[in-house]
Amino acid sequence: MNKNTKVNAAILIIGNEILSGRTQDTNTSTLAIWLNSIGVKISEVRIIPDIEEIIIDTLNLLRKNYDYVFTSGGIGPTHDDITAESVSKAFRIKYEIHEEAFKILEKYYKPGEFNEGRQKMVWMPENSNLILNPTSGAPGFSVENVFCLPGVPSILKSMLGGLTNKIVGGEPILSLTISLRTVESEIASSLTQIQNKNQDVEIGSYPFFHAGKLGVSIVIRSEDQSKIDNCNSQILKFVNEKNIVVVDR
Amino acid sequence: MNKNTKVNAAILIIGNEILSGRTQDTNTSTLAIWLNSIGVKISEVRIIPDIEEIIIDTLNLLRKNYDYVFTSGGIGPTHDDITAESVSKAFRIKYEIHEEAFKILEKYYKPGEFNEGRQKMVWMPENSNLILNPTSGAPGFSVENVFCLPGVPSILKSMLGGLTNKIVGGEPILSLTISLRTVESEIASSLTQIQNKNQDVEIGSYPFFHAGKLGVSIVIRSEDQSKIDNCNSQILKFVNEKNIVVVDR
Repeated sequence: MNKNTKVNAAILIIGNEILSGRTQDTNTSTLAIWLNSIGVKISEVRIIPDIEEIIIDTLNLLRKNYDYVFTSGGIGPTHDDITAESVSKAFRIKYEIHEEAFKILEKYYKPGEFNEGRQKMVWMPENSNLILNPTSGAPGFSVENVFCLPGVPSILKSMLGGLTNKIVGGEPILSLTISLRTVESEIASSLTQIQNKNQDVEIGSYPFFHAGKLGVSIVIRSEDQSKIDNCNSQILKFVNEKNIVVVDR
Repeated sequence: MNKNTKVNAAILIIGNEILSGRTQDTNTSTLAIWLNSIGVKISEVRIIPDIEEIIIDTLNLLRKNYDYVFTSGGIGPTHDDITAESVSKAFRIKYEIHEEAFKILEKYYKPGEFNEGRQKMVWMPENSNLILNPTSGAPGFSVENVFCLPGVPSILKSMLGGLTNKIVGGEPILSLTISLRTVESEIASSLTQIQNKNQDVEIGSYPFFHAGKLGVSIVIRSEDQSKIDNCNSQILKFVNEKNIVVVDR
């Protein structure tokens, strides 16, 4: 049962609009939560500009270092959408019309609407696997361990369901949150002791301000529920001793 | 007048809570918008876990590659706050009590409240410059071109004002947005032509869905207002020719 396989991934967000602050990235958290649920841990995220050389170099580094790489952005019809061509160059494979993608979009658009701009979206690395797009037609694609998704959050989200069978995760990463009516400094030393005694569990401490009151959420993360439960008991012990109130959050 | 200096920076977000998807990063966009306004362009963002070795290696790479590095997260009182010690190790300088920071927090807290956990927050790299914190007392710090800020968005935001004089930017990066009632594929080829004729201006195209209607925002970015205006005229020309409606967004 306990496979104990760790599967690690990186996210590569491609887009000047994120680096300029114009657009707030939300795809990282969408992808991370979904990947966690299927046992894939995000170890690193990089946000880079729409510059071919940078996309190629970063992708070649990440795809060697991680089990999976998920890219977001740059697969639309305009001049600044250069992800598919850059991925082809990174893998040193041909950038060409994907027959299946062509057929999908030919059907998707009304006669005469499948114009030059839209046809750009069927150019992909040779022999790409398609990632179907139930929202707006144009598919994403994968090559080896690299999965290329669009930047528009609602479209990206709608494509994850179709990916589930293509990603082989390890044990799902479980987590438990304990929210306390306290401040971090009150619990810091007790928490340090518990982290030291439970090295294979990840304990995070996050202050929050909610409904006018300060609090701290302690998050315990592990692949092993019994380790989380054990850690939880140790935390609740000092919480009781210090008369700290546990709250919902 | 036209300094034409390009000043580039990287953002390093430190925190497992961002990688797990539990917390949505908003500091990138806050920092990017503020830095743009003072002529600093964000060229890269990395999000990494609370692991000392990774923080040290990433920081040492980024601080050599960019004019400035801004870190966010990991400077609180708990065991998972390891940014200050990691920065000390990256620069190979002592990690010690910062006398001025100690005095600030001693005054900030009521007698008896400046406990062990809180005292951790005055440990910093030797001779750090403080970044004052008008919200919650505990200062950030800078060493050479590395500026370390907290992860809590409201606190980070409140500390930027005090930083303005410490960052020397180039020409502010100006931008103009034209929002159109169209889809990207309708304007892709015209936009490509304009980008090709205006290589030193950055033109981005971003689809949006707002109030039930699809549209595209075209963003023109440059340090030179006249180049933006020139590009704007060229875009409005084809927009008119195609009878595309310009909308507010």
